[in-house]
Amino acid sequence: MVDPENYSCLEACQACQVACLQCAAACLEEEDPGTMKDCIKLDLDCAAVCALAAEAMARDSDFVLAVCALCADICDACADECEQYDMEHCEACAESCRRCADACREMVGDVEEED
Amino acid sequence: MVDPENYSCLEACQACQVACLQCAAACLEEEDPGTMKDCIKLDLDCAAVCALAAEAMARDSDFVLAVCALCADICDACADECEQYDMEHCEACAESCRRCADACREMVGDVEEED
Amino acid sequence: MVDPENYSCLEACQACQVACLQCAAACLEEEDPGTMKDCIKLDLDCAAVCALAAEAMARDSDFVLAVCALCADICDACADECEQYDMEHCEACAESCRRCADACREMVGDVEEED
Amino acid sequence: MVDPENYSCLEACQACQVACLQCAAACLEEEDPGTMKDCIKLDLDCAAVCALAAEAMARDSDFVLAVCALCADICDACADECEQYDMEHCEACAESCRRCADACREMVGDVEEED
Repeated sequence: MVDPENYSCLEACQACQVACLQCAAACLEEEDPGTMKDCIKLDLDCAAVCALAAEAMARDSDFVLAVCALCADICDACADECEQYDMEHCEACAESCRRCADACREMVGDVEEED
Repeated sequence: MVDPENYSCLEACQACQVACLQCAAACLEEEDPGTMKDCIKLDLDCAAVCALAAEAMARDSDFVLAVCALCADICDACADECEQYDMEHCEACAESCRRCADACREMVGDVEEED
Repeated sequence: MVDPENYSCLEACQACQVACLQCAAACLEEEDPGTMKDCIKLDLDCAAVCALAAEAMARDSDFVLAVCALCADICDACADECEQYDMEHCEACAESCRRCADACREMVGDVEEED
Repeated sequence: MVDPENYSCLEACQACQVACLQCAAACLEEEDPGTMKDCIKLDLDCAAVCALAAEAMARDSDFVLAVCALCADICDACADECEQYDMEHCEACAESCRRCADACREMVGDVEEED
């Protein structure tokens, strides 16, 4: 079972995955999606690693630590990109990414302390 | 953007995916996992299709209808299996599967009515 | 174990997933990605369902039939879109999609005949 | 587009994902799946990260390096486990895992040299 205190990280990953997929879809609908291509690419990267991290936590994988560390890095890169734009979907995505990066780093720290 | 009224379906799919992955992991830790092999198999099927459905909704895919219809069928099959057992993880999974099946069918109905 | 005669379908799904992801990435790098947004969207839909189908076959899921039927439909939709463009990545993607749709339909037919 | 010399890594990841999912499914069908639970768990971890790595390469992600490094570690852990058993599915899985770990490490090395 997922450790109850890790639920918040799992939920942050799921929320971030959705925000990234929504941001990518919305970027494609912007007037000039070419200006958003780096954002779309990072959104897809971030959504994919968030999905992996959420799955790893749900399955109580032995690799949660390593997956969450990678997830935090990609979330930060995606947030850095999204923060450059003032569309609502980018702002919402950047916020979700920062929250997810924080939750992942907190979990990595918690696990390391337990060791 | 995800239609606000469809958020509940997306969230039901995400919750069901997690419940299925947790159930599979917990079944493996039971004293005799061999008795739970059909449940584990269905859990993995159900988790995978729930992930696809959640992603399709988040990306506002044109195939949400077809994906949710398939998701509802697999959720029901997984619920039918889990309901045979009285472990907490199976009961929780069966409930999540029924809720997700209902949400998917409601969405299929809503979309069909709009057409 | 995957039925040896079904390996060709599994491989067609994996090849199609890759072709779709490559096509989506290449469309984003085109001069005006806005003209390719429907193609990108379908590429992502198709890649996701191909991944599900390949996984279902590898796990010898009881839902291979239903998943492959859905996969064939989405592959055809993606091929229809990609065939409208003369970029190499779209042509390669359309071919992979048709091959995957055929393989999935053949498998659905084979399974139905066995029943 | 995927760099042609990286195709072999992408294909190794896809082959490893399939071998892991097949091994997990076959382990569940063994007489006493309880003795194989660590193997099943690692198979699912490994399949998931191989899927992420293959997707990252197909999309020409900027995070291929980090994802492949993680993939190599999980592949080795899965191979270490599978090598303890003499079932054909475990032997095949261990081989696929080693091949994938090597391909991922080679790619990480190649990318690092380019930098």
